Amino acid sequence: MNLREEALKLHEENRGKIEVVSKVPLRDFRHLSLAYTPGVAEPCKEIKQNRELVYRYTCKGRVVAVVTDGSAVLGLGNIGPEAGMPVMEGKALLFKTFAGVDAFPICLATQDVDEIVGAVKNIAPTFGGINLEDISAPRCFEIERRLKQELDIPVFHDDQHGTAIVVLAGVLNALKIVGKDMAKVRFVINGAGAAGVAIAKLLLRAGAGDVVVCDRRGVIYLGREGMDWSKEELARITNRSGIKGDLKEAMEGSDVFIGVSAAGVVTRDMVASMAKDPVVFAMANPVPEIFPDEAKAGGAKVVGTGRSDFPNQINNVLAFPGIFRGALEVRAKDINEEMKLAAAHAIASLVAPE
Amino acid sequence: MNLREEALKLHEENRGKIEVVSKVPLRDFRHLSLAYTPGVAEPCKEIKQNRELVYRYTCKGRVVAVVTDGSAVLGLGNIGPEAGMPVMEGKALLFKTFAGVDAFPICLATQDVDEIVGAVKNIAPTFGGINLEDISAPRCFEIERRLKQELDIPVFHDDQHGTAIVVLAGVLNALKIVGKDMAKVRFVINGAGAAGVAIAKLLLRAGAGDVVVCDRRGVIYLGREGMDWSKEELARITNRSGIKGDLKEAMEGSDVFIGVSAAGVVTRDMVASMAKDPVVFAMANPVPEIFPDEAKAGGAKVVGTGRSDFPNQINNVLAFPGIFRGALEVRAKDINEEMKLAAAHAIASLVAPE
Repeated sequence: MNLREEALKLHEENRGKIEVVSKVPLRDFRHLSLAYTPGVAEPCKEIKQNRELVYRYTCKGRVVAVVTDGSAVLGLGNIGPEAGMPVMEGKALLFKTFAGVDAFPICLATQDVDEIVGAVKNIAPTFGGINLEDISAPRCFEIERRLKQELDIPVFHDDQHGTAIVVLAGVLNALKIVGKDMAKVRFVINGAGAAGVAIAKLLLRAGAGDVVVCDRRGVIYLGREGMDWSKEELARITNRSGIKGDLKEAMEGSDVFIGVSAAGVVTRDMVASMAKDPVVFAMANPVPEIFPDEAKAGGAKVVGTGRSDFPNQINNVLAFPGIFRGALEVRAKDINEEMKLAAAHAIASLVAPE
Repeated sequence: MNLREEALKLHEENRGKIEVVSKVPLRDFRHLSLAYTPGVAEPCKEIKQNRELVYRYTCKGRVVAVVTDGSAVLGLGNIGPEAGMPVMEGKALLFKTFAGVDAFPICLATQDVDEIVGAVKNIAPTFGGINLEDISAPRCFEIERRLKQELDIPVFHDDQHGTAIVVLAGVLNALKIVGKDMAKVRFVINGAGAAGVAIAKLLLRAGAGDVVVCDRRGVIYLGREGMDWSKEELARITNRSGIKGDLKEAMEGSDVFIGVSAAGVVTRDMVASMAKDPVVFAMANPVPEIFPDEAKAGGAKVVGTGRSDFPNQINNVLAFPGIFRGALEVRAKDINEEMKLAAAHAIASLVAPE
């Protein structure tokens, strides 16, 4: 049986992948009278008196909603909420397996920003945190910003920040290997969607010398025409030397390439045109921007991809379960820049670079 | 330790009562590649081609949302979504324990009808059914009606229909004991909220001779002033003889009393004023309209309450888990009147009346 058949079989046999089970015994009238009426009225009354006690007496403080509108699922694009369910259930498994966090998929029937914000706000009392997932850019930025403002629980768009954290962790260790100083390094990011934007911002926050971001039309720079507001913002904070041109030109003399967009767009020659000891993170899935052997042939010193079948997989499952576990444990109201930087350093410190 | 302390301890020790767990193994790269990327893309693509396959490959077809706005929780009133959480988690346990249905609490931050309808519509792709819970009347009627119209999954307000089903089941058996014919029986219901309205409608649907409903101001009749639209509707379909007056007057000569409202409003004399062999279901919680020994002293032939510490508990846990299990199994798009009647007869048939 090939992977496709086996994956379908696994999903069909179990009718999905998650299950909601009881943590308390429910075998007789006594159990019922504690977990349900009349005993259940007691925690209700306590929480009514002091709303914070919802964290003590209910599952809220350990449950995260994995929210999508199905608009940008994996590399499959806008496949809608139902077709997004297997991924969101999978995400819930990762939360549970890697950090003991209970997570539940919420696949929304709308792709309207106001309606998404409204629905998530309205279901928020049940949850200790909101993990936004696979929502297309630039809508994802506005949705996250508004929800962070309006909710008193952590809101985290994993495609942005989970990815940015693991990329930064990888960068920190790669720079140790090539002996370069973050403040003097020029990064080139290919892809200006959720991941590209968040990676650029976190790298700058971490002290990157410069970051140049490319989209399908080439380098993003101040004054380029026809950009949406998120790219306008990017143009203001990146590309300090104001370079223009295409990805090939951007990569010349750069130190680190980070690909989060299109398969096969980087050649061996482009790697060879980078500064000494290039670092190449080619994370397009399933086909990377350049395969590791080609990147190595072009002179790359450190090569990472998004795939588990090559060395140095850059996988945000290293970040999001633990980030939420930590945020829930301390009942953080937000997951802020300091927490992301701390997470990246913590993940980087788990391995000793060769 | 008393019940209160023990109930608080149970809720605190477990931080709530439900847990989201994995149904599939997740121990190595192979498992990850089946349950998550790249294998997870296969069911996604299948569902994108044919949306109905979401029932085959995901948990949707076995998961029910237990939705409340916290406006009418137990006998505690409008305590809000957070304070309603312990009850909704408890409900999820009952679903799982009594019918193997996975249920998840959704406590809403709004009590606005449009917003509730909007939020539930938007989260519906995740769920196989919607169990509305503890939403105050008459808002609950409009919310349920609109959601039933707009969604293609079963929507069921348990406080209405779960209660009505178990009451009808009890009535069917009680009438066998007293040897009366449904078509000739006059019912008096005290309480015109969610439960009272639904019981009245289901009894009429089951062929009741007449049903008279009382609220705090007495008998509901056509032309009574100051009634909301749901009571106006009730006035049109109940009280065929057009009686007026208070609960005491309504009960005189009636066959069956059904209380779903206020503690202690029925006296021994009122039971004695009923027709021969009265049936009394005094279901106010925790203090019934009349205690069983008093009702018996007034001549009641069959007495039921909502409490587990008296005989003949009328408890909707007998109905809602199985109703949803059945609806999910056959992928019903609605839970209609025929299904409710069938459920009542099925439940009644489980015991042989003495």
